[in-house]
Amino acid sequence: MLADFGVLDGFGHVSARDPKNPNHFLMSRSLAPALVTADDIMEFDLDGNAVDARGRQVFLERFIHSEIYKARPDVMAVVHTHSPGVIPFGVSQMALRPMFHNAAFLGAGVPVWDIRKEFGETDMLVRDSARGKSLATTLGDKPVVLMRGHGDVTVAPSVRMAVFRAYYTDVDAKLQAQAIGLGGEINYLTPGEGAKADTINFVVLDRIWNLWKMRVAPGLPK
Amino acid sequence: MLADFGVLDGFGHVSARDPKNPNHFLMSRSLAPALVTADDIMEFDLDGNAVDARGRQVFLERFIHSEIYKARPDVMAVVHTHSPGVIPFGVSQMALRPMFHNAAFLGAGVPVWDIRKEFGETDMLVRDSARGKSLATTLGDKPVVLMRGHGDVTVAPSVRMAVFRAYYTDVDAKLQAQAIGLGGEINYLTPGEGAKADTINFVVLDRIWNLWKMRVAPGLPK
Amino acid sequence: MLADFGVLDGFGHVSARDPKNPNHFLMSRSLAPALVTADDIMEFDLDGNAVDARGRQVFLERFIHSEIYKARPDVMAVVHTHSPGVIPFGVSQMALRPMFHNAAFLGAGVPVWDIRKEFGETDMLVRDSARGKSLATTLGDKPVVLMRGHGDVTVAPSVRMAVFRAYYTDVDAKLQAQAIGLGGEINYLTPGEGAKADTINFVVLDRIWNLWKMRVAPGLPK
Amino acid sequence: MLADFGVLDGFGHVSARDPKNPNHFLMSRSLAPALVTADDIMEFDLDGNAVDARGRQVFLERFIHSEIYKARPDVMAVVHTHSPGVIPFGVSQMALRPMFHNAAFLGAGVPVWDIRKEFGETDMLVRDSARGKSLATTLGDKPVVLMRGHGDVTVAPSVRMAVFRAYYTDVDAKLQAQAIGLGGEINYLTPGEGAKADTINFVVLDRIWNLWKMRVAPGLPK
Repeated sequence: MLADFGVLDGFGHVSARDPKNPNHFLMSRSLAPALVTADDIMEFDLDGNAVDARGRQVFLERFIHSEIYKARPDVMAVVHTHSPGVIPFGVSQMALRPMFHNAAFLGAGVPVWDIRKEFGETDMLVRDSARGKSLATTLGDKPVVLMRGHGDVTVAPSVRMAVFRAYYTDVDAKLQAQAIGLGGEINYLTPGEGAKADTINFVVLDRIWNLWKMRVAPGLPK
Repeated sequence: MLADFGVLDGFGHVSARDPKNPNHFLMSRSLAPALVTADDIMEFDLDGNAVDARGRQVFLERFIHSEIYKARPDVMAVVHTHSPGVIPFGVSQMALRPMFHNAAFLGAGVPVWDIRKEFGETDMLVRDSARGKSLATTLGDKPVVLMRGHGDVTVAPSVRMAVFRAYYTDVDAKLQAQAIGLGGEINYLTPGEGAKADTINFVVLDRIWNLWKMRVAPGLPK
Repeated sequence: MLADFGVLDGFGHVSARDPKNPNHFLMSRSLAPALVTADDIMEFDLDGNAVDARGRQVFLERFIHSEIYKARPDVMAVVHTHSPGVIPFGVSQMALRPMFHNAAFLGAGVPVWDIRKEFGETDMLVRDSARGKSLATTLGDKPVVLMRGHGDVTVAPSVRMAVFRAYYTDVDAKLQAQAIGLGGEINYLTPGEGAKADTINFVVLDRIWNLWKMRVAPGLPK
Repeated sequence: MLADFGVLDGFGHVSARDPKNPNHFLMSRSLAPALVTADDIMEFDLDGNAVDARGRQVFLERFIHSEIYKARPDVMAVVHTHSPGVIPFGVSQMALRPMFHNAAFLGAGVPVWDIRKEFGETDMLVRDSARGKSLATTLGDKPVVLMRGHGDVTVAPSVRMAVFRAYYTDVDAKLQAQAIGLGGEINYLTPGEGAKADTINFVVLDRIWNLWKMRVAPGLPK
C-alpha cells in the first residue's frame, strides 16, 4: 500500500511484533517493500538477530525496529520510510505539526533525530544497536520521529495504524508546506484537539484500510 | 469520480436531497466513497435519523448534511471532502478566491468555520445537530465553506454541480497557492465576474460530467 | 494527448486551418477534447459560422480561433487550454519566461490579455468576434498569449507544433514557479537564445510526437 | 525506467562505454528513450562518429557523451535528462545540495555549466566537440553537472548507477525546493556524510533496480 502511494519506494520497511512472543518481531528479508511476499518474512529478536536466517540477506537498519520494540512495550508495529513529504522537515528548523484531524497523532509533538549529534559524520544508517537506541530515545513516547537527512519512523499498536500514520504523516507534511507558502499564522490543531481527534482515527481506520486493500489487492476478501 | 481525482480519499461523503420528499436526504452507509454501490444508499430525515437503518452503520458526520438541508431549501446536494488543496486555506489567514472562470462560484466569498470558536477543543467532527447548525450558519447563502483543520463542504442545486464545485474548489486552491508563490498582487475574478461566469458553468457542466463518467465508468450510457 | 497530460481537461479546444481553403478552419463540436472522434469535426468560416452545422452544438468560444486565423495568415493551428501551469501567471504581475530550450518560443515575450480592460465585467468568455479580435490583437505576432482568469492560447504553423507549445508552455510555467521559490535572480534564456533554440524544436518535434502518439494510441501506425 | 518516472520525456539519452573497447560507446539512434529497442543501439567513437551508421539518424548531442568518456576514464555510463526537478536549479543561484542519503553523491558539489559563458548566444545544444569538452571540463571529477536552461548529466561506473543518480538528482532537487519553502537554515548532508553514505548506495542499488525492472518490464527475469 505504502509503495502504491509513493510513501515507500525501493527502500523503507515495515515490521510487526510477534503477537505470540513479544520479544520477537517479524520483518521481510532485504527487499523492496512492493516485492515482499509471505515467504520473505523473517523473525528477529530484540537485539536484531535473525532467528532462522537460512542464508537470507537482512536489512542493515533492522536496529530501528529492535530498539524501538525494546524501549516501547506498547508498540506492536514499526514503519520506516523515506517519504518525500517528511524529508524537508527533517532538515529544517520548522516543526512538523497537525494540519487536520487525520494527522491528529502529530499533536503530541514530532521530534527530529540527527544522527550527527551523537555519532558524528556517518553513512546515515541505523546500522547497530547504539544508533537504534539513540533513535528510540529521541522518539520517546511519541508516535512519529523524523530522521534528519533520511526519513521517518512511525509506531502504533497495530500494523494498520502504523501504516495509516506513515501515510498521513507524509500527507500532513505536504499540506503544512503549502500552508506555509500562503504566508501568515497557521491555525494548527492544538494538543488537546490532537488527542481527542486521534481517538476517532482508531474508530475509522478500517474504513480507509478496506479501500486501500481493495486498491492494491482487489481480489482479497474484505 | 472525486475519489478518482484525489478530492476524496477513504473519507468524505456525498448526499442528495430526496427529490420526492424534501425533508429527507439520501447518503451511503459509513463506507469509503469509492466503494459505495446502490445497495449502500440510506435515507435520513433532517435531524440525521436513518429512516430504515437495518443495522447498517451510519456516518458520524451526517449532521453536516441534515442541518444544511434544513437551513437551505435551495440546496439539493452536499459534498464533504478532506481535499488536499483546501486544507491549507482552512488553517490560514489567506482567503480562498477565484483564480479562473471554472471556480467562479468562489467569487461569492468563502467563509471558514472554526469548530473551536463555539465548541472549544473537540475531536473536530460534526457529530451532532448543534455543530451541524453552526456550520450551516457559517455557510450562509454561499456555495462553499471551509472547515478549519478538516476540509470543506460544497452545496449546489444538483449532485453534478456539487461535485463540480468540490473538484474546482480543490483545483482553484492549488492554483491560488501557486500564484501567491509568484509574489506580487493577484488579479482575481471580481464578484461581478464571478456571478456572470458561474452561470456559464451551469451551461457547460454536462460536457465535463460526460468526460468524467466515461473515465470512471466507461461502460455506462452517456 | 493534451488531455492525457492534464493540459486540457473537459474544456479547451484544438483547431486547424483548412489546408485546402485558408478561409476555413476545422474544429470539433462542443465536446470534451478527450471524447472527440473524426465525426465530431466541423468546418467554420473566419467569422465563426459553421459551414454545415447539421444541428451539432458549437463552442461558444470559436471566436478565439476565427479571429486569430483572420489576423495571422501564418497560423495553421490554434490550441486553447485552461492548463494549470499558466493560470497563476495570467493573474500575476510576474511575466512568463523561457526556462529551457524546449520552451524557447516563449523568448519572444508572452503577453497577457485581460478581458476586463476592454469589456468590463463579463462572463470571461470569448463569445463574439469583438472579443476574439481583441485577444488576437494582444497576441500580435507571438506564439502564446495568456488569458487572465481563464487560460492560454498557443498558435503555430502546424497542429503538432501548436500542441507541443501548449504542452511546454504549461511545463515551463511550473518550472518557473519552482525557480522563483528558490529565491534570487533567474538566468532565463535570452531572446537571442530563444530564437535560435526554437528552430531546433521544429527539427526534433516528430521525436516527441511519435512518443505521445504511441502513448495515447498505441495501435496507430508511426 | 527514467521515462516511467518522468525524469526523461521525449528527449534525453542514456549511453554506456563499450566494455570490450573503452574507446567506443553505445547509444541509441535519435529516438525517444521509451521507444528504444535493442536494434536501435549504435556504436560511436570518442569523437562522436558512428561506427556503422547504416543510415540511422544520430543524436545532435552525442558530444555530451563522447567528450565525457574521453575526459573521464572512470565513467562507464552517461545519462542526459531535462528532468523537471533540476531545471530550476540550473537557472538559479541556489546550489543543489544533498537532502538525504540516497542523494549523497551530490555532496561532492554540483557545478552548473552555462553554455553562454564560452559560446555566447546559441541554440543551447551540445552539438560539437568543443561544447562537449567545455561541459566535461565543468563536470570535472563530479558525478553530476547541471546545464543552464537545459537539464543535467549524470555519470557513474555503471548504467544502473547512472540511472540511480539521474533519478535521485531529480528527487533531491524537488525536496530541496520544498525545504527552502519552509524557510530558515537547512541541515544538508555534509561532504563527509555524503562520501560515506554514497558507498551504501552502491551496496543497495540492486534492491531498487529490481523493483524498477519489475515495474517497467514485469516479464523479465530478475
